[in-house]
Amino acid sequence: MINKLISGIKKTNAPVVVGLDPMMDYIPGYIKEKAFAKCGETLEGASEAIWEYNKEIIDHIYDIVPAVKPQIAMYEQFGIPGLVAFKKTVDYAKEKGMVVIGDIKRGDIGSTSKAYAVGHIGKVKVGSNIIAPFDEDFVTVNPYLGSDGVNPFIDVIKEEKKGIFVLVKTSNPSSGEFQDRPLNDADNRPLYEIVGEQVAKWGNEVMGDEYSYIGAVVGATYPEMGKVLREIMPKTYILVPGYGAQGGKGADLVNFFNKDGLGAIVNSSRGIIAAYKQDKYAEFGEARFAEASRKAALDMIEDISNALNS
Amino acid sequence: MINKLISGIKKTNAPVVVGLDPMMDYIPGYIKEKAFAKCGETLEGASEAIWEYNKEIIDHIYDIVPAVKPQIAMYEQFGIPGLVAFKKTVDYAKEKGMVVIGDIKRGDIGSTSKAYAVGHIGKVKVGSNIIAPFDEDFVTVNPYLGSDGVNPFIDVIKEEKKGIFVLVKTSNPSSGEFQDRPLNDADNRPLYEIVGEQVAKWGNEVMGDEYSYIGAVVGATYPEMGKVLREIMPKTYILVPGYGAQGGKGADLVNFFNKDGLGAIVNSSRGIIAAYKQDKYAEFGEARFAEASRKAALDMIEDISNALNS
Repeated sequence: MINKLISGIKKTNAPVVVGLDPMMDYIPGYIKEKAFAKCGETLEGASEAIWEYNKEIIDHIYDIVPAVKPQIAMYEQFGIPGLVAFKKTVDYAKEKGMVVIGDIKRGDIGSTSKAYAVGHIGKVKVGSNIIAPFDEDFVTVNPYLGSDGVNPFIDVIKEEKKGIFVLVKTSNPSSGEFQDRPLNDADNRPLYEIVGEQVAKWGNEVMGDEYSYIGAVVGATYPEMGKVLREIMPKTYILVPGYGAQGGKGADLVNFFNKDGLGAIVNSSRGIIAAYKQDKYAEFGEARFAEASRKAALDMIEDISNALNS
Repeated sequence: MINKLISGIKKTNAPVVVGLDPMMDYIPGYIKEKAFAKCGETLEGASEAIWEYNKEIIDHIYDIVPAVKPQIAMYEQFGIPGLVAFKKTVDYAKEKGMVVIGDIKRGDIGSTSKAYAVGHIGKVKVGSNIIAPFDEDFVTVNPYLGSDGVNPFIDVIKEEKKGIFVLVKTSNPSSGEFQDRPLNDADNRPLYEIVGEQVAKWGNEVMGDEYSYIGAVVGATYPEMGKVLREIMPKTYILVPGYGAQGGKGADLVNFFNKDGLGAIVNSSRGIIAAYKQDKYAEFGEARFAEASRKAALDMIEDISNALNS
């Protein structure tokens, strides 16, 4: 699946993933009204609105962007019906040829971690049937519990040729509280470097053609740390959140890429899916929100391309 | 909700939570056959089997144990239908008067963390309706992303008077890979102590009568670390996994309790819910599996009580 992701990036010339993190505030009023008219002001109504919103965005970006990253929390907050919209979104994006990164940040141990792995990127056995429940292509994983949490994913990756992105250095302001703590070893290096080293080690076990099936998450908001991590994990694809709304700029992204122009895929969520709410794209209005998303995606691709070429 | 949990512990004299982590292998054949006959060998069939199994266990323990802890991964692995069984289990245990700790180990940032918080222990707004989607009493939270990930939960806790347990030192063998790293500060203390200090600080913001609404997870398999963490977090309830199947013994648990006999609640999953598979409880057989669970719970309560009184 890492090979498919890289070939999609090469084909579109867009190392970009669109974060499908639908907040109710982002969804145009007419979509919500229609959904509520059909299903009521219920969890099912919220789910229907999210699904219609996502579908239109996917229809407007699938030919220019290789991947989407639905953030499962935004669906899970609407309970079971919300997760139905998550699953429909995963399936539809895959139908359209996109790679789907489930941003689930799960992390547990042993049989529990295995359950997350088979549920999201693998298959379960029920009686004599084998079923792929959520069937994303990649998921994000939290490393706090160590190898016991990651190894069950590695087993599934080997079988399914799918992948994971492990949180190394997250994009948020307080990510340093624990991740940046300097350790008492020879170089007093911060924790996230040790995690990065371990991600590279895990990744060696499951190599694709050029890069590993095991990637890392490193925030665009920390470009200097990205530079160090890029060197520590040379064969690791880096999923880079924090571009756009969180403050990361195109020029900050260069550090996350390798000299081959590969090695990183940059996420933008709000900046793309709610583009019509920005002054810059206001001309599109609510009715053409998905065209605004397409334009914002094209602008982002150009911004990154300019940064990489300069 | 921490007050309700403590009053339940006092009433039953059982600082015990039963982990409802149903593996298909644990579920008696006759329950699976009935469920598959009704729903087919499908995700719905798995869900039905899990629900019937859980229901019978709850019916046999609700009067002797104050809380259950369903591990959401074991449901999520069966996709949407699996999560339906999770939700039915949460609702049923609450109906029976039990406190429900959703073992979800979620951890994200900002609006995403808020989405998990409102989805699991709070309420969402859909149009003019206010709805509680999953409605557990407590959930477990991963701290790797720092305060940005925990603060949204604190906001919801203040409104709902519910609670969380933050992972500090997990019970698994590899938990030390990152959690035990000695830091480069004055005392070279391990990371988990710093996390524990932070949990105590977060907890000060949301105190119940005797203990905070913010608890911690510390594995029974690390009793010496438990002793130190008990002192660092005096007003923090500790959820202790790792008893029984993972190797933790009653005598190991003393360190997790305060002198008031409170301050810890010990989890057992497999050891209770699949007790009938142990030689010790084999006499019950498959047909009386839930009676075996009750007997195993009573034995566990006695084991802990003996340890605390000696």
